[in-house]
Amino acid sequence: MSENTPENGHPTATGPENGAHDASADPSSVDAYAGQIAVFSAEQPLTLECGENLSPFQIAYQTYGTLNDERSNAILICHALTGDQHVANDHPITGKPGWWTKMVGPGRPIDTDRFFVICSNVIGGCLGTTGPSAINPATGKPYGLDFPVITIRDMVRAQAMLIERLGIDSLFAVIGGSMGGMQVLQWAVTYPDKVFAAIPIATAAHHSSQNIAFHEAGRQAIMSDSDWHGGAYQDFRVRPHKGLAVARMIAHITYMSEQALQRKFGRNLQDRDAFTYGFDADFQIESYLRHQGFTFVDRFDANAYLYITRAMDYYDLRTEEEHLLADAFRGTETRFCVVSFTSDWLYPTAESRHIVNALNAVAANVSFVEIESDKGHDAFLLDEPEMFSTLSGFINSAAWQRGLTPAGEGA
Amino acid sequence: MSENTPENGHPTATGPENGAHDASADPSSVDAYAGQIAVFSAEQPLTLECGENLSPFQIAYQTYGTLNDERSNAILICHALTGDQHVANDHPITGKPGWWTKMVGPGRPIDTDRFFVICSNVIGGCLGTTGPSAINPATGKPYGLDFPVITIRDMVRAQAMLIERLGIDSLFAVIGGSMGGMQVLQWAVTYPDKVFAAIPIATAAHHSSQNIAFHEAGRQAIMSDSDWHGGAYQDFRVRPHKGLAVARMIAHITYMSEQALQRKFGRNLQDRDAFTYGFDADFQIESYLRHQGFTFVDRFDANAYLYITRAMDYYDLRTEEEHLLADAFRGTETRFCVVSFTSDWLYPTAESRHIVNALNAVAANVSFVEIESDKGHDAFLLDEPEMFSTLSGFINSAAWQRGLTPAGEGA
Repeated sequence: MSENTPENGHPTATGPENGAHDASADPSSVDAYAGQIAVFSAEQPLTLECGENLSPFQIAYQTYGTLNDERSNAILICHALTGDQHVANDHPITGKPGWWTKMVGPGRPIDTDRFFVICSNVIGGCLGTTGPSAINPATGKPYGLDFPVITIRDMVRAQAMLIERLGIDSLFAVIGGSMGGMQVLQWAVTYPDKVFAAIPIATAAHHSSQNIAFHEAGRQAIMSDSDWHGGAYQDFRVRPHKGLAVARMIAHITYMSEQALQRKFGRNLQDRDAFTYGFDADFQIESYLRHQGFTFVDRFDANAYLYITRAMDYYDLRTEEEHLLADAFRGTETRFCVVSFTSDWLYPTAESRHIVNALNAVAANVSFVEIESDKGHDAFLLDEPEMFSTLSGFINSAAWQRGLTPAGEGA
Repeated sequence: MSENTPENGHPTATGPENGAHDASADPSSVDAYAGQIAVFSAEQPLTLECGENLSPFQIAYQTYGTLNDERSNAILICHALTGDQHVANDHPITGKPGWWTKMVGPGRPIDTDRFFVICSNVIGGCLGTTGPSAINPATGKPYGLDFPVITIRDMVRAQAMLIERLGIDSLFAVIGGSMGGMQVLQWAVTYPDKVFAAIPIATAAHHSSQNIAFHEAGRQAIMSDSDWHGGAYQDFRVRPHKGLAVARMIAHITYMSEQALQRKFGRNLQDRDAFTYGFDADFQIESYLRHQGFTFVDRFDANAYLYITRAMDYYDLRTEEEHLLADAFRGTETRFCVVSFTSDWLYPTAESRHIVNALNAVAANVSFVEIESDKGHDAFLLDEPEMFSTLSGFINSAAWQRGLTPAGEGA
């Protein structure tokens, strides 16, 4: 298996022998940014919840650390809506550090000296895994809106195929925040025997009406952009940048708490002493939001944003089992660690309690921590020492139960 | 003075003699929807906070009830961002009842059998009062972005000119919710001798960072619409409907509480039994939001939305008096009744407490009621019996203090 190369911050893209290839040599393709790629041919379609088969398809992923001989030390990290597989290496497009370097790395809570860490770009995504910008084999053109609508369960099924490809029967842990947490819960429900420990962070068992509403406003912003062309913008060699930027701005507000916005920006003016009495970004918060919107479009695809938000809206663990969440978890032997943040109003603690109550109702092994933070939903991506110590403790304890050797005693 | 004509639901447009005219005869103009209009000629410019003079300009307004001989029973209602002067008559464009018919009318808390009620369209608005869609006398074309940026104080100054035109020295009460509440507070600060009682509802003394952020996302949605044309869309005979609809959708989410959304819509599907696996409005909340967006554009102007949200963002009562809110109110003899709602997260109760604390610090006469409601910010527009009884009590008590005859004993 490949290893991360911390010297240059970029992973080696040397994939495993069985079906993966190194695409980084082809800079004309998004595959150049993908890292490792697992290709699934026509004989291995992904059967989607909508009834269609996606085939062929590929999954782009990163790995860090070394799989042990027992193949028992694998941790799957599931990324959030706008995340990707570059969890602990510099991002190939932005050049910025990976999105969870504080959590993942040597000596970090997810210790790459000890665990074999996998993170894959979700189905429907735009950084190497097959999504709406991929070529539709039936037409030879990008899928656009002909791409089938995917669900969180589809994302997880694809990940399960990747895990199997990597020769791993059972994951030591699955962890993720926000949409990543939805995938964690879906893993525990769909593949209970393959998940030793599950860590859903800042998430919910179904998407609330308010969250659907914010997503819908973002989708309408994208679809209102005259450069969207009914999703076929690649045919016109344009991109609906303005609409996607607005969608990002809407969403970004929901990722922060009112307190954090007040603390960071308040009503401070941006590089000026007085109002300009115009529509420039007089306030720092305006300048910040515009920056968030305008930089996002460089690394994300508008149709992927439509598809992934749709998957989140459709997500409801209850639908599988007659609307009782507890039934979804009945009989589980997975250890759960559920984490929420006090100022997260997008996935408030009540949503996590709902999950914990369901797990308790079936006598599952669950710990729950609500972390005091004013940083809102994005707290899970930030420097939150209590989160790190909570997860270190849980992971170390689970590793001991799994019979994994502690760090420093030889992996 | 004119009276409402409940028979047809439309007010008579017979204005007072002094400078107003009936514009309803000209259906080619927005003035047709204005009701009464007060015109201020070049000799009476509106001096704006930005330093410019707006001239000539006009104010569209409605009145209900009869001004008493002492001219002491006038109540000014200030409307919110997307409100207008049609507070208690059917709306001339939508045909729907006025926006506060539960509050204003014969026998209502604001009793039109007893009080002379005035509501004017704000400066910068789009229903008859001069705003960015009006003709710029300097060019003969619509102002567009050449319209000067206005503030809440400018809105209030214009209203004060209207009140003077109507021959009223002092208002018995000024009342309004949201941006209307901002105007109420500004009235009490700018014209303390002209306001006997002030009722700011669901509002704040300055706009928070989060609220500026939501407004900025809405403005970016409008300005991203290719039909916006830098604000000069009237020259192109188009309107940025899509961008304005998205702005409305964003804002509308903030007007409701998560609980109300969950109660009204939850994850219910719209006229279907199962997901369509597409981007139609599968969920009721999506259908509702789209409807809110698409109907809004029929009655509102995109540039007016830019200007009025800007005025709200700029609003900060503290800027006048060295950043201490209490100083703004020092010496006031106005009676205040401050109202907030438990589930209003756009203007949370903490913002009202901030106002109340400042008023208490200068020993002002203030009562404060936080009303239990799950309806969010929009509660002030809805059927909230506790709000009605609170305001009836406050208004009756203030009327007694003002020496106004109780209802039924002859006005």
